[in-house]
Amino acid sequence: MRLSRYFLPTLREDPKEAEIVSHRLMLRAGLIRQQSAGIYSWLPIGLKVLNKISAIVREEQNRSGAVELLMPTIQSADLWRESSRYDAYGKEMLRITDRHEREMLYGPTNEEMITDIFRSYVRSYKDLPLNLYHIQWKFRDEIRPRFGTMRSREFLMKDAYSFDIDQAGARHSYNRMFVAYLRTFARLGLKAIPMQADTGPIGGDLSHEFIILASTGESEVFCHRDFLDFPIPTADTDFDDIAGLQTIVDKWTSLYAATSEKHDEAAFAAIPNDRKVSARGIEVGHIFYFGTKYSLPMKATVTGPDGQEHPVHMGSYGIGPSRLVAAIIEASHDEAGIVWPDPIAPFDVSLINIKVGDTATDEACAHLYRALALRGLDVLYDDRDERPGAKFATADLVGMPWQILVGPKGLADGKVEVKRRATGERELLSIEDAVTRIAG
Amino acid sequence: MRLSRYFLPTLREDPKEAEIVSHRLMLRAGLIRQQSAGIYSWLPIGLKVLNKISAIVREEQNRSGAVELLMPTIQSADLWRESSRYDAYGKEMLRITDRHEREMLYGPTNEEMITDIFRSYVRSYKDLPLNLYHIQWKFRDEIRPRFGTMRSREFLMKDAYSFDIDQAGARHSYNRMFVAYLRTFARLGLKAIPMQADTGPIGGDLSHEFIILASTGESEVFCHRDFLDFPIPTADTDFDDIAGLQTIVDKWTSLYAATSEKHDEAAFAAIPNDRKVSARGIEVGHIFYFGTKYSLPMKATVTGPDGQEHPVHMGSYGIGPSRLVAAIIEASHDEAGIVWPDPIAPFDVSLINIKVGDTATDEACAHLYRALALRGLDVLYDDRDERPGAKFATADLVGMPWQILVGPKGLADGKVEVKRRATGERELLSIEDAVTRIAG
Repeated sequence: MRLSRYFLPTLREDPKEAEIVSHRLMLRAGLIRQQSAGIYSWLPIGLKVLNKISAIVREEQNRSGAVELLMPTIQSADLWRESSRYDAYGKEMLRITDRHEREMLYGPTNEEMITDIFRSYVRSYKDLPLNLYHIQWKFRDEIRPRFGTMRSREFLMKDAYSFDIDQAGARHSYNRMFVAYLRTFARLGLKAIPMQADTGPIGGDLSHEFIILASTGESEVFCHRDFLDFPIPTADTDFDDIAGLQTIVDKWTSLYAATSEKHDEAAFAAIPNDRKVSARGIEVGHIFYFGTKYSLPMKATVTGPDGQEHPVHMGSYGIGPSRLVAAIIEASHDEAGIVWPDPIAPFDVSLINIKVGDTATDEACAHLYRALALRGLDVLYDDRDERPGAKFATADLVGMPWQILVGPKGLADGKVEVKRRATGERELLSIEDAVTRIAG
Repeated sequence: MRLSRYFLPTLREDPKEAEIVSHRLMLRAGLIRQQSAGIYSWLPIGLKVLNKISAIVREEQNRSGAVELLMPTIQSADLWRESSRYDAYGKEMLRITDRHEREMLYGPTNEEMITDIFRSYVRSYKDLPLNLYHIQWKFRDEIRPRFGTMRSREFLMKDAYSFDIDQAGARHSYNRMFVAYLRTFARLGLKAIPMQADTGPIGGDLSHEFIILASTGESEVFCHRDFLDFPIPTADTDFDDIAGLQTIVDKWTSLYAATSEKHDEAAFAAIPNDRKVSARGIEVGHIFYFGTKYSLPMKATVTGPDGQEHPVHMGSYGIGPSRLVAAIIEASHDEAGIVWPDPIAPFDVSLINIKVGDTATDEACAHLYRALALRGLDVLYDDRDERPGAKFATADLVGMPWQILVGPKGLADGKVEVKRRATGERELLSIEDAVTRIAG
């Protein structure tokens, strides 16, 4: 993409309203724009990151056996009355009256609707297990939205819902998601630690939050340092292997890890001092088993092998891609700007033309642009008529993993400069070597 | 995907509420489920089609030079007061009051918000032309939602917005979209004819609707038959070629074509009788040029080459992917069910195991499933323990382009049956020939 034909509105000044670094950088690097309190537009490079995160989430959900569908944003209040949550949910629910005076709401979560879909179609235990998920915009009318997309009112969430004939089946479904989440966060370049968690308004008695450590995190967390080196389950993990998945989950829950709400001083004290981690964390995922909390009142039952009707055992499993964009930046930035992990960078390469209008420079850039595209790389080509210093600053700010600096001086020696954003490491290479260095 | 692990809830009976064939088939084939009046969940195969349509729309938008971003669904009423549309829009706008008593709304369209984004960042004519689009859920509180996703309340729309320094530039931007739309509909397997149209509440004085002919269409249309054979602009069309694009648009507007609102009996009478088409049509796209209608009141100006401030000339360009799913089914079905055009079919192949549990049949199916996947094909494998008749009916109903029927009788001769859904044509082929026949 040529920057002159793109829409990448960066800001020179730090926006006053931004209290944390990810919010500041997302505004400055042109990822988002606030439209109302807690409501954002995703500008082109922000949307690209959001889509890349969602794609990784989707791949790992599918790998674990979950099936994607898409529920609408607007729901009927009557559905929420069936679970008694319509009155219970409070002011965070955005309540709406339509032109026919029907009470509607903007979905903050989808337990009721998915249970309604399930009971409409599924009759027999033979159709279980089933895990249905969607990636859809949600709305929670936070009293004080803040921290940009970390705690916004309109936000993107992947929410999955599992249905099983009994608790043992539900446990396996829970473990599938547990392992899928470990893989998802690792692929996003994050070290996420599963911690015992409160279940809050979702309900239920088994729950883990997945937390990444970041100095700006909103919660205090405590855990054993060994978690940071635990191996991530591989792509060929057999999600049908009940015992195998349980072994993985047992290992990942064998050491102490808890948020402050669940913190146990005595258990933490028992960890050797050099293995203690007491830090701040950001919740990036939350999984729940809540049994028949929704299936009983909403009459979501199936016929079991015994010929009897059984309410299904359910769990729900959430990841917020829009929150993850901010969390990843909290975990990966420096003074100059964002440092994108390779798998979710909006572009792979910033190609910087230091002297637009110089024939040799323009030609070298055009050649690099084509050569990198042919190798499957997505290149943002800064072809603007701007000072080199401004271009370098923009490239550091927006944080693509690689930069190529092309100017008459280097080209006189047949060289361009390749810079790795994360390390700052620079190499002078021939054009062909630069392509090989980046495309591998 | 193994059907036993998928979620494809088909219905045996015709749903009573469905008045038109696409609505009936979308419910019966398990594409959608109504959650409230005019509000639908997209079940797995419905979502796959919706995503494939959106992907084609996106590719053609990008090819034409438009840049994707994503605006939120919830907007502030104040923004709409700036254009005076807040009061003017009427009851179709879903109005919302948040917990702080602020007036909000669920966006029915985005002219105001995109103009606000534009004016926040763009200062100079040097940054033009610019065309920004998004693919986002919209809500219009129709008094009588009907025809399924053809006229629903919550619906998916691609809306693009162009910004130019003057009318000549805006005309070229309009032509870019005109040509992108011709390509988009052709790739979706549709013959869409651009027709002069009313501009309605969007405003402006240049507008075309893209209409496909279908006996169940909601509007009456009149056009010259030659449109049906006009060549579609190729993928290598140069969208920067002002004269070249104008030539294409001139050709596509050279013959008579109009909806009933714009119908001119005299002009239609002048067409030779054997070239007259008077039919029903479905609107699948609508493009508008409206000049400074929004930029003037909202003060979206740029500095021109003359150093003066100029309000930008704008256009907007809509395609509804959720409506297109229904429109494509209206145009492509038979008595037995849906007949998906290849590019948007949810799966490429229905693989039907006629005798589950028969070792040779199971092995042949497993082999075909792997071999087709290796060739890049997406296969829905009916591995359920069901009567063959029910499996054949399901396969016809859900309408994948190819079916492979595998049973002990054919396998005894080393053959499987390959059926092309659109023509009903059947061939007995060896397993390897079947793969080659389908994968090409």
